[in-house]
Order: sequence, then C-alpha cells, then structure tokens
Amino acid sequence: MSQTPGLKLGILGGGQLSRMMALAAHPYGIHPIIYSNSEKEPASQVSPYFFIGNLNDANLIKKFMLECDVITFESEFWDSHLLETLSKETKKPIYPSPRLMGLLQDRLTQKQLLEKYRIPTAPFKNVTNKTDLLDCGFSKSKNEDNTLVLKQRRFGYDGYGTFFVKTNLKDKEWENIIQKSTNGFIAEKKIKFKRELALLFARDRFGKIIEFPLVESKQTNARCDWVMGPLKHPQEKPLRNLIKNLLKKENYVGVIAFELFDTGSKLLVNEIAPRVHNSGHYSLDALSLSQFQAHVLAVCGLHLPKAQLLSPFAMANLLGTTEKSPSWPSTLFNKPERVQLHWYGKHNNRPDRKMGHINALGSSPKKALQSALTARKKVKI
Amino acid sequence: MSQTPGLKLGILGGGQLSRMMALAAHPYGIHPIIYSNSEKEPASQVSPYFFIGNLNDANLIKKFMLECDVITFESEFWDSHLLETLSKETKKPIYPSPRLMGLLQDRLTQKQLLEKYRIPTAPFKNVTNKTDLLDCGFSKSKNEDNTLVLKQRRFGYDGYGTFFVKTNLKDKEWENIIQKSTNGFIAEKKIKFKRELALLFARDRFGKIIEFPLVESKQTNARCDWVMGPLKHPQEKPLRNLIKNLLKKENYVGVIAFELFDTGSKLLVNEIAPRVHNSGHYSLDALSLSQFQAHVLAVCGLHLPKAQLLSPFAMANLLGTTEKSPSWPSTLFNKPERVQLHWYGKHNNRPDRKMGHINALGSSPKKALQSALTARKKVKI
Repeated sequence: MSQTPGLKLGILGGGQLSRMMALAAHPYGIHPIIYSNSEKEPASQVSPYFFIGNLNDANLIKKFMLECDVITFESEFWDSHLLETLSKETKKPIYPSPRLMGLLQDRLTQKQLLEKYRIPTAPFKNVTNKTDLLDCGFSKSKNEDNTLVLKQRRFGYDGYGTFFVKTNLKDKEWENIIQKSTNGFIAEKKIKFKRELALLFARDRFGKIIEFPLVESKQTNARCDWVMGPLKHPQEKPLRNLIKNLLKKENYVGVIAFELFDTGSKLLVNEIAPRVHNSGHYSLDALSLSQFQAHVLAVCGLHLPKAQLLSPFAMANLLGTTEKSPSWPSTLFNKPERVQLHWYGKHNNRPDRKMGHINALGSSPKKALQSALTARKKVKI
Repeated sequence: MSQTPGLKLGILGGGQLSRMMALAAHPYGIHPIIYSNSEKEPASQVSPYFFIGNLNDANLIKKFMLECDVITFESEFWDSHLLETLSKETKKPIYPSPRLMGLLQDRLTQKQLLEKYRIPTAPFKNVTNKTDLLDCGFSKSKNEDNTLVLKQRRFGYDGYGTFFVKTNLKDKEWENIIQKSTNGFIAEKKIKFKRELALLFARDRFGKIIEFPLVESKQTNARCDWVMGPLKHPQEKPLRNLIKNLLKKENYVGVIAFELFDTGSKLLVNEIAPRVHNSGHYSLDALSLSQFQAHVLAVCGLHLPKAQLLSPFAMANLLGTTEKSPSWPSTLFNKPERVQLHWYGKHNNRPDRKMGHINALGSSPKKALQSALTARKKVKI
C-alpha cells in the first residue's frame, strides 16, 4: 500500500485538540480540513482549509466528508448514527468508528464495555428513578458513607454532569438533578482513591498498538491541572493487557485515553475518551512521537512507529482566570531551560477555559513538574 | 517586557522555510502572516493569513507590513533598500535587519564583512573584466592548477551563478559568462577541501547567542544531499568565537548559517545565509529547540532558551526526480524507528526540486545517516 502526499484528513471540531492534530498532519504532507463552529476557532488558525457549520448540519457535514479522504474527530459528542450513515453514503471512512464513538459517549454502554472485557472499574448501576438509588446494593466497607456518584449518561465531561448524592436524598434534590439531563444517569460507587492516573494507547489500521507511559493526572475543581510521568504501578501491566485485548477485539483505530483511579492496591478505569486527550499533551515534547502524530498516522492508514520516551516530563494546563487578554514575559522560555509553550489561540480568555499548556522535561517527573509550575506562574491569564 | 499572545509575525516568502517557521510560530500563540507568490505555496497551506503578491510590489508589501507587528524573511534576495524604507515608513521592525540582508546578499560585501572580522575564507577578488582574472594573484601551491571560481555577486545560491574557469579563458567563454549576470562577479581561489561543514547560530534581541552543533553537509550537483552531526573539528572553537564577535558587533537578530570548507587543518567560511537554513533542518527532531523556533522567538523579542542536543542525527533531502506525483509506502515510519518526515506540500514535483526532508536519530551520526538514507529509498519522488 502506498500513500500519496496530499491525503485529506477531515477533522470534526475546531478546538485545541483539532488544532494540535492539524499541526501534526502538516509535516506528513497530510492536509487537515477542519469542520468548525467558527473561523476564529483554534484549528481554523492553522489551516486554510475549513468548513464553518454546526454539529448537526447533516448536509454540510456530508459535503465536508466528500472533500476528505478519511475523517476523525476531536470530541466523542457527535451524532454517531448520523456519522455512521454519512460514512456509508459517502464511502469515506471515519476513525475511530462511529459505532465505538456511540458506545463510549454513553456512560452506561461505556461501563458495559469495560465489564465485557473484565476491565476493573467502579461498581455502577443504571438509574432511571429515585428508587434505583436506594437499591444500588454496592458493597460498603466500614468507613464509607452512603454517598453515590451520579453521572449523566451523555455529554458529561470535565466534571460536567457529575453529582455526589446520598442514597437517601430528598425528592426535591432528585428533581433538581433529573432536570439537568434528558439522557438518564448511572450511579457509581464513590471510590476512595489516592490519586488519578491515565494511560494512552494508539492502534493503527494494521493492528499495531503503541503504548504511552503511565502518568499522574491531577484534577482540581474537576479540571485537569497538571500531569507528570512516567510512573509505575504494580497493576499497570495486567491492566494494559486487558485494555489491549479490548482494542484488538473492537478493532479500535486511533488514540484512546483511559482515566484511572489509583486506590493504592488497585487501578480502576474511571473514564474512556476515544480520542487524543489532555493527559497526553506531554507527548508533544517528551516522546519521539506525539499523541497527535500517532493519531494522524493511525487514522490515515500509515504504520505506527514506536514512541520512545526522551525524558521524564510534566504538563501544566493554562486555565483562564479572568476575561482580560493573557500575557507572558519575554523571559518565559529563558529559565527553566526545557519548557515549551503550546498556546491554543482562543479568541477570548475566560475563567476556567483551557487556553494552552506548558510542557517541561526534567531529570525526574517531580523536577519536571516543578519547572512546569514555575513557568506557569509567569503567565498572566 | 511582556508579550501578548496574538503577536503577528510577517514572513516574506512562502516556501518551505517560511512554512516551517509558521508551523513553529503557532504553538507560541504567534500568528504567522505569509507574503507569498501563490496560495498554493508551502507556507500558505499552514496559515489562513496570507497576502498574495510579487517580490517587488512595494504598495502591497507596505500594506502587509502594516498588518504585522514584526517582519522576517525566508530568503535574503529581496530589495533591501525597499525593505529598509518601508520599515521606517511603517515603524515595523524587520529582523535580521535589511542593512545586513543587503550586505550578505552581495558576495563581494559578504566577503568584505568576513575580512573585517578576520574570519577565514577563500582569497577573493572583485572582477569587472577579463583582465582582472589574469591578475588575481592568489598564491598557488605546486599541485594546484590555474582554475578559479567565478561567482555572480547577487542572486547566486545552490550552485546557481557559480562557474569554474581558467585564468586564461578565451574571450568567447568570458562573454558567455558575463552575459549571465548584470551584477558583476567575484573570483575566488578554488579550495581543495575534504568535506563541507556548516554552523548555525541564533541571536535574540537581548544579545544572547545560542549555538547549534557542527554538521557535515554533503553537496551533490551543487544541492544539499544530506547532513549529519554532531561533529568535532580542532578549528571549531576559534571560528565560533570569531563568528560570535561578528554577530555581536553587527547586532544580528535571528538565525544565521555559515557554510564551511574543511581543508583538514583549516575551516574556511564559504557562504553566509542570514536566515534559517537547509543545514539546520535536523534541529526539528534532534534538539530541544529547532532553528525555526529559535528564529521565531528571537525576531519576536522573546529570550532564547538553550538548544539541547537530544541525539546524534542526520537529515536527507527529498529531491524530485520526475514530474510524477510522489508517493511513499504506509510502512515509511515503521522501521527504522526514529525517522520523521517533513513534507513541504509543493504543488508540483519536478527534478531537483526540494520536496521535503527526512530526519533520523541514531546512536552515532553515521548510524542516523544510514537510517535517513534507508528511509529515503522508500519514497518515490
């Protein structure tokens, strides 16, 4: 099989993940074509090829797909049935498959997929009414209270659509929550964990899987604050094997991220994202192959090389705190010496918005983290 | 001094050097605005912000400059007086300065600059008529013949405008050559060299200089074929010191490349290019800071970090051999494992055209070169 430069990779979505995929595509001679809300979106700034439209405009999405050779996405929250239909109509492949996007965008079917492959995860139950909560029947050890985690089945991410409730919550509290989602909820046993970790994989169209290092992913107010790695965990290898089995059996293509709870003795999968992921941004500077390069190669039908670790690393997100224009000093890159800025070019700053991130390398994950956090302090955002 | 993201970097020229500068600018939140011949040029493919115009359209260049915060260029063959005037009129800085562009785009003033700073170079003479050739007076050792190198003073690069002649050439031969340039020639003593090397530097607006490793640059038919490094040479350090003195005294800003002859015992500067350079493309993968990042940071008024070497490296140019569409196998990146393609997205393939390059890392420069050449064989071009 030979690939001709000029292959057109359609990317659904115009945010920072799409932007970094587009930047990774260019050196391979692959033209990224962006389907985005607005020409001011981060990805439209790095490619002259874009379609401006909304997420549900079937006609425009079809027109876009006809312009592309292969299509991928930066978010799993598209209409997976629509994409499946359009892929058949246009004969243009979409990777990862819309079928898997559909399974993973719903927390219930995502949990069922984990169960199917015996991948450890928190006990869960489908919840359709208040009585289901009382009846969860999760085993409870001595020191645990009766708190449950309610997660809306669809369109929940970064803490949106997640609620901590007591099993005996009042009718009015229940009514308040149920109004927030039309797609139902799952209840999960609240897990006591020591820290959150993440694992990333990429699988190409020929079945080769490459594995990224285990990282810690620090969440603050339900948003990723920083990441560092590589780390080790006694349960890492068996978990990797179970995940690789899932990827193989489901014929997954592209990058996929697994967010984990580390309870000390166990690793439980908390969430799966069928795409490039914030917890893998370090790979832009710390590996010989970034997650964005890996995803682009995999979905475009190129064989994946190994991703060699160059150094211990850390990543610190740059989250907006005001609506003022951000700025940084001209000395940002001066010291510490191995930090790199990845700015997303968002049109407006606003509190909690992911505006960019800083990668740092160091002699250990903690030293790299120190460098990343020191550099972050210099950015006014 | 603080820098706000969204700074607009104007880049004169739309070829591969401009493209790689633009790709380096994006992650810093710096908007590259391209001034290019055509929207199909390599750089216009990686930024939606471009002006289409020719090299001498003073009005359009002025309009372009007014849209930018700072301006740079990918080639030194612009009208340096025009740029100097427009920079004053628009109050927009151009780095490197048009004054230095002017000095370096003329081989005579370039040679005089080298002389001024006592930087070793081949003996030369300004040539305005045939008699000047007879009268060169270069000292000649026993085994040398009477061949001279005639180089046209302006617009000569990659072997264009260079002629090997005998001091006693015939009138008709002289007439043939003199017709080829309206800007006169210099004559140089033909140097017997073992190999060609290159050195690259970057200097920021605060005077900090960073140094890139010494590399071998293999030329075939007057075109760069491959590069490998890092190398060592006994005369490297004194030469670096002389060059750094020049950069400081001339207040140079940006990346600058020095092509060298290695005679065994001596290093002689053959040519200077006041810009990012083919001999520095390896830096995209082999250093913690690429030449393109360094140039962008330097000209945009940001302090330069160190450029740390990650591994021995090589680069192989991908030169067109036909006019057919190029292609490569999907296994291109599979083995050897640490190769990276940098494709320029040129609209048409044609013989000898630089279409892209391959970087490879390895345990030694020679091993890296072997990987790069093996990978290159897979590309049909």
